[in-house]
Amino acid sequence: MATDEQLKIDEGSRLGGAHTVGLVETQYWTFADPPLALDGGRTLSPVTQAYETYGQLNAVRDNAILIFHALSGDAHVAGYHTPEDRKPGWWDIMVGPGKPFDTAKYMVICCNVIGGCKGSTGPASVNPGTGQPYGLDFPIVTIGDMVQAQKRLIDHLGIKRLLAVAGGSMGGMMALDWSTRYPAAAASVLAIATTARNSAQGIAFNEVGRQAIMSDANWDGGSYYGKAVPQAGLAVARMIGHITYLSDEQMRAKFGRRLQDRAALGYDFQAEFEVESYLKYQGNAFVGRFDANTYLYITKAIDYFDLAAGKRSLLEAFEGAKTEYLVISFTSDWLYPTYQSKEIVRALHANGIATTFLEIPSTYGHDAFLLPSEDLSNAIAGFLANVHRRVQQNGRKEASHGQ
Amino acid sequence: MATDEQLKIDEGSRLGGAHTVGLVETQYWTFADPPLALDGGRTLSPVTQAYETYGQLNAVRDNAILIFHALSGDAHVAGYHTPEDRKPGWWDIMVGPGKPFDTAKYMVICCNVIGGCKGSTGPASVNPGTGQPYGLDFPIVTIGDMVQAQKRLIDHLGIKRLLAVAGGSMGGMMALDWSTRYPAAAASVLAIATTARNSAQGIAFNEVGRQAIMSDANWDGGSYYGKAVPQAGLAVARMIGHITYLSDEQMRAKFGRRLQDRAALGYDFQAEFEVESYLKYQGNAFVGRFDANTYLYITKAIDYFDLAAGKRSLLEAFEGAKTEYLVISFTSDWLYPTYQSKEIVRALHANGIATTFLEIPSTYGHDAFLLPSEDLSNAIAGFLANVHRRVQQNGRKEASHGQ
Repeated sequence: MATDEQLKIDEGSRLGGAHTVGLVETQYWTFADPPLALDGGRTLSPVTQAYETYGQLNAVRDNAILIFHALSGDAHVAGYHTPEDRKPGWWDIMVGPGKPFDTAKYMVICCNVIGGCKGSTGPASVNPGTGQPYGLDFPIVTIGDMVQAQKRLIDHLGIKRLLAVAGGSMGGMMALDWSTRYPAAAASVLAIATTARNSAQGIAFNEVGRQAIMSDANWDGGSYYGKAVPQAGLAVARMIGHITYLSDEQMRAKFGRRLQDRAALGYDFQAEFEVESYLKYQGNAFVGRFDANTYLYITKAIDYFDLAAGKRSLLEAFEGAKTEYLVISFTSDWLYPTYQSKEIVRALHANGIATTFLEIPSTYGHDAFLLPSEDLSNAIAGFLANVHRRVQQNGRKEASHGQ
Repeated sequence: MATDEQLKIDEGSRLGGAHTVGLVETQYWTFADPPLALDGGRTLSPVTQAYETYGQLNAVRDNAILIFHALSGDAHVAGYHTPEDRKPGWWDIMVGPGKPFDTAKYMVICCNVIGGCKGSTGPASVNPGTGQPYGLDFPIVTIGDMVQAQKRLIDHLGIKRLLAVAGGSMGGMMALDWSTRYPAAAASVLAIATTARNSAQGIAFNEVGRQAIMSDANWDGGSYYGKAVPQAGLAVARMIGHITYLSDEQMRAKFGRRLQDRAALGYDFQAEFEVESYLKYQGNAFVGRFDANTYLYITKAIDYFDLAAGKRSLLEAFEGAKTEYLVISFTSDWLYPTYQSKEIVRALHANGIATTFLEIPSTYGHDAFLLPSEDLSNAIAGFLANVHRRVQQNGRKEASHGQ
């Protein structure tokens, strides 16, 4: 008999009129040799990566899609870990049988980034040199380093060429990086609500978040493991982040100047406006599920991200790209605004690369990519179907040529 | 013989092709009885207010302008306190002989808000009930309370009707409040880069700043006077504020992704991007000149500000207004965006109140109102000249009727 909660889960799983991938399990794969050579000049070994897969790899191994997660995401993109889970994976509305990333057709893979705190090697992991958690001895990792590590996982899974690499926000940065770093290793790229380089304003918000963490007395140079954690600093950092994920318009519609649990102004420093309560709740909830040092490392990776670094221009960065691209932005996203997607699209077009660009009207701000949207669903589903058809056609041609 | 620094000062004073008000002195006026009755239900007494005046009040006392300052401002709007001062007052480019607020024609007054830390009574002042600094025993003050207190000062100065009340940002809120609270006590209002109510997003940014301060271990419930101050928290709050004062476009132009004092990425957590150094500098500089508790009180006053509170609409809020208005916004200001100025203008027009609205093209974001702008200078100078002419004409009529 279904409990109320299970009914809720079922309800959530039916979002988009499709079904759930059901119960899933996080898997772990560790490599040590050769060590991962990082952009910053140091190496990392051993490297454990937490990942999940959904759907089946077909016989010709041409239907695998790698989804990259955003700042606070993890490998758990869809389904449930236990029947009691109240919430499914972070992009369950998009990943499952009959959903845009259709697990009845495609094998979907998602992997926690290195530097993370959701099962992959990061600053909370044990430093083999000391037997203690790395803390700030963990090397700085870049978006490229995260991608490198995931390429090893894809090789390990025996997949030569992905049908697609896809991601929103930081995940989109990784998809773009993969497509220029390993041009032959993906047939297509879905870059959603993202940018080819973090802007000065983006760096500024991240730096303020880092300062909030590092100025928390509990942070202690990053060596807080086993002690009180810098929760106040991390909560403030998360609150700042949350403001940038919403839009002015959405905040006005969602909260306005309404009061929380009060009939009148309190004339004190309690969180009395709904928007204040919301942010405090988000900040405090985050503290329970995220490591402050990982917040430092991942925001730093985002800040370092510049696809054109070492090139004369973004145009040159895409010169070797062989894939086709779907670039999507949202009108009210002011963290990675549409003009930044257009910079990507212009550089791709200038290289003669097949690119579909879509700016989706939305009031939800940057968060829009995580929320139900028919425009987004249709764009992803249609793009993947076309790419898969072409890949299969080419596969048949190659097979007949080979005979 | 002029030193280099004096030459720099002179150079600064010639901004806008006009001259400086020269050396000025902050004055202080204290009232105790009746105590100030605050919106929150408590009273405040005694109340000291720091203020400065520039130019001469004319015989008919119709040429006085009250300028209200913004969050981190003070009474020192123009000129120098000593010949050694490196910087003039905060709006020296707009206030002086021959400048838009022309001290050859008008008497300009500026007063530090109550709750402030620049000479007026605030949380760092001695609580007469305890002999100790108020700290968080200081009552919450609103924009209306600040305005009430300044009305007492204007009465004390013997001015019945100001030629204008003017301000940018929070100063604009005070100007709007004055015009509805004391409709007969100002002939005109200049509301620049401001809003009739702080938005959910505005409240959110302020609340994160307050959380940064209040979660600093040194804050100690606000009782840090004479001890280590919560400088890390205040610096983070100021950094957040600064991001909202600039625009994405301006940050890109001013900083981009350029590095500070480094040839290459450092792969560490130092502030290495120029924008990071800039923000850290701004945060740390602020700590030396501002009181953290005042930051709490003033941001709270801004959050409480809603000109339509207790009314059915903004339209009703302006019903009694008798003044004429100049409302100015800046295209790239996303803290108090143009649509918020337009809400004010629509409500004024609906009441049949003479209103000039100007949206000035600028890439400087909210900070634009503090920076040189011919559009802004011309609008202020022209508006004030017109208002003054009408006031003088009406004055002559009244005088001749009286004979």
